Amino acid sequence: MRMYDMIVKKRNGGELADQEIQAIIDGYVGGIIPDYQMSALLMAIYFQGMTNRELGTLTMAMAKSGDMVDLSSIDGIKVDKHSTGGVGDKTTLVLAPLVAACGGKVAKMSGRGLGHTGGTVDKMESIPGMRVEMDEQDFLRQVRKIGVSVIGQSGELAPADKKLYALRDVTGTVESIPLIASSIMSKKLAAGSDAILLDVKVGSGAFMKNIDDAHTLAEVMVRIGQHNGRRMKALLTDMDCPLGVSIGNALEVKEVIETLSGHGPSDLEHECVTMAAHMLELSNLGTYDACLAKAKQALFDGSALRKFQDMIIAQGGNGEVIYDTSLLPGATYTYDIKATKCGYIQHMQTEEIGLAAVQLGAGRATKEDTIDFGAGIVMAKKTGDAVQVGEILATLYANDESLFERAADVYVQALTIGADPVELQNPILGMVE
Amino acid sequence: MRMYDMIVKKRNGGELADQEIQAIIDGYVGGIIPDYQMSALLMAIYFQGMTNRELGTLTMAMAKSGDMVDLSSIDGIKVDKHSTGGVGDKTTLVLAPLVAACGGKVAKMSGRGLGHTGGTVDKMESIPGMRVEMDEQDFLRQVRKIGVSVIGQSGELAPADKKLYALRDVTGTVESIPLIASSIMSKKLAAGSDAILLDVKVGSGAFMKNIDDAHTLAEVMVRIGQHNGRRMKALLTDMDCPLGVSIGNALEVKEVIETLSGHGPSDLEHECVTMAAHMLELSNLGTYDACLAKAKQALFDGSALRKFQDMIIAQGGNGEVIYDTSLLPGATYTYDIKATKCGYIQHMQTEEIGLAAVQLGAGRATKEDTIDFGAGIVMAKKTGDAVQVGEILATLYANDESLFERAADVYVQALTIGADPVELQNPILGMVE
Repeated sequence: MRMYDMIVKKRNGGELADQEIQAIIDGYVGGIIPDYQMSALLMAIYFQGMTNRELGTLTMAMAKSGDMVDLSSIDGIKVDKHSTGGVGDKTTLVLAPLVAACGGKVAKMSGRGLGHTGGTVDKMESIPGMRVEMDEQDFLRQVRKIGVSVIGQSGELAPADKKLYALRDVTGTVESIPLIASSIMSKKLAAGSDAILLDVKVGSGAFMKNIDDAHTLAEVMVRIGQHNGRRMKALLTDMDCPLGVSIGNALEVKEVIETLSGHGPSDLEHECVTMAAHMLELSNLGTYDACLAKAKQALFDGSALRKFQDMIIAQGGNGEVIYDTSLLPGATYTYDIKATKCGYIQHMQTEEIGLAAVQLGAGRATKEDTIDFGAGIVMAKKTGDAVQVGEILATLYANDESLFERAADVYVQALTIGADPVELQNPILGMVE
Repeated sequence: MRMYDMIVKKRNGGELADQEIQAIIDGYVGGIIPDYQMSALLMAIYFQGMTNRELGTLTMAMAKSGDMVDLSSIDGIKVDKHSTGGVGDKTTLVLAPLVAACGGKVAKMSGRGLGHTGGTVDKMESIPGMRVEMDEQDFLRQVRKIGVSVIGQSGELAPADKKLYALRDVTGTVESIPLIASSIMSKKLAAGSDAILLDVKVGSGAFMKNIDDAHTLAEVMVRIGQHNGRRMKALLTDMDCPLGVSIGNALEVKEVIETLSGHGPSDLEHECVTMAAHMLELSNLGTYDACLAKAKQALFDGSALRKFQDMIIAQGGNGEVIYDTSLLPGATYTYDIKATKCGYIQHMQTEEIGLAAVQLGAGRATKEDTIDFGAGIVMAKKTGDAVQVGEILATLYANDESLFERAADVYVQALTIGADPVELQNPILGMVE
């Protein structure tokens, strides 16, 4: 098997055999296949695509290039969730305790934020004392004991993906749906859960800007998981407007606590109970309708919030935070953005709003940046809302007053206010299973 | 200008600006752009192609990466000819003196053979004493004096092409018509002639197996030359059957001498006078018809043969060879391949026939092989000829008897003999100007 022949085969629209794909990944990780051949193959894949069988094999080969997390010591079906990333997306922190409160098993590794999207691990670190790094035995023990643990990525998951992504990043081969799908799913396969709910975000604040691409990505990822024996479902959800009302780490944790108490923003609550029901159904814990009822019940009877407290305490955090959110890091300064014209909010450039939060210190522009946990934005008006002149559109939070002016400019620029009322769409845009 | 952006632009079907193309070639030759980015760009070009303007600029940038031969000390229009390579293709050795005998100026650099195709420089070296390496001043002086010189490539012509070709060769990006065209033309532009006749071979013995691809390649090369101010014409010629009757270096020189004496095989003579007429017309030496008459005249009045002798002598060779071809290297052994069935030769697998000659020692399988100048094949029957059982199909020449059996097998396998007569096509299949 010569790499040259495999490049030509793919270039000509052929299908690579399983052993060819395995040889490519082994050879590349092992340093036998040079970057210049791999980048030519990646560009050929960009144009010719891959079949579901090829992608299933490729993704598992990438997963097996590093550590494979073994969750078999935990009883029952372990369920994971992955979001392609959005602005104000704190669903993982709601879902993990909510699903566990309903009998699901969530042993989850999450990531950090970069650019306009936030990361679950950063949000958790804003809770005083909470640990996101844990050795594998402690992680497993916690899930066996309380049904849930969310930590940062430990060990070396899918190093082939890391090496491939670095190459794609400089060779114009990032924007390929099969390659995006295999990159995401390689880490999910390595993370060991039996069932995976994918949340593919669509819209101005998401990586996928249109529904067709998002649907294709969801379909491809579901087939990759199924090819490798995982129970899979994907939702397409709207990210044309930030989720909930808060953006920024401690502000989002506060909103998570409100949501788990049954007082969260309605869009966030709706999305969370829907996703929890799908995760519970994937875990064989009842029909979708029964699981949905269970999830709603857990929000209103306090069991989901108590599970969140259990999780915080198990990971070294201050559990009192669920009763007293003033224990979370705050911001010295606030700044109200007021409307200078009246009408309805027609549209929010969600990516820009995420970047406004980054400017306040809530996120990272580059990997090396540090985060100000107290910084962020609380939106008073979102798409569809009526606005009067002088009404507050949003409140900005920062520990450096000089940051407000530019962030406020970016925020205001991101809004379109017009005279016509706006019909809101269902935030769940579709499903693939 | 970041290479990444240029890769993405081309990947998305965009057109690269002249300064972008120049930066790519400068950066790649200068070692600033790494192979893995260049191979991704090459694969994107494979799929998206390039416009004539992009190719014109790319090709000149490649040419200017090395030495540019300056032919301005030679009066008049200097005319070059390039063949994409065939089996038994000795046209350059006929054309160079033929065109010079008619008043054209031919200052030509030629290549060596590899695989099933032979090279002009190897053929010349089979003439006792003849030099194919010459410094530039001697080369120019000879053309000023006798109107013609053919030598091996001197200096460093288009090093960018050499580097790019080596990368294409291992990344599955050789078979791209724009890249093939720019590779060939970069060396032609650097070689300095004002006018260039391209001979694009089509058929079983050529790199281009079908007429459509050959036509596209011809068209693209003509436009590249014209973009850079060269007078251009391309002929598409048949290589579905070897040209002339001899294959092998000294055997082909003998056939060249016969052709220059007006006694050559009719297909070879026809092709040579046609091409000479086009080269003379490109040199502004009359209408096509007038130039054709001049070329025919030069074959029959002995002036073309005398010019060949002048050229041999000027390059240190034994000029007596034109009267006495036994001065050329010979073969100790010959072997007649006889027909075992009767009928008409329907088809010749020309590439296979070229490889049979290589097996006898007449060519190189790899760059390091040495050539037996006396070895080769003289065909007695070609496509369209009637054959009786026991008649000689071809005679093999070698200095090692043990080579005959396998080469004869390959040769016989390459022929298709059937009952139906065959209609022969005009070997000039088309023209682009």
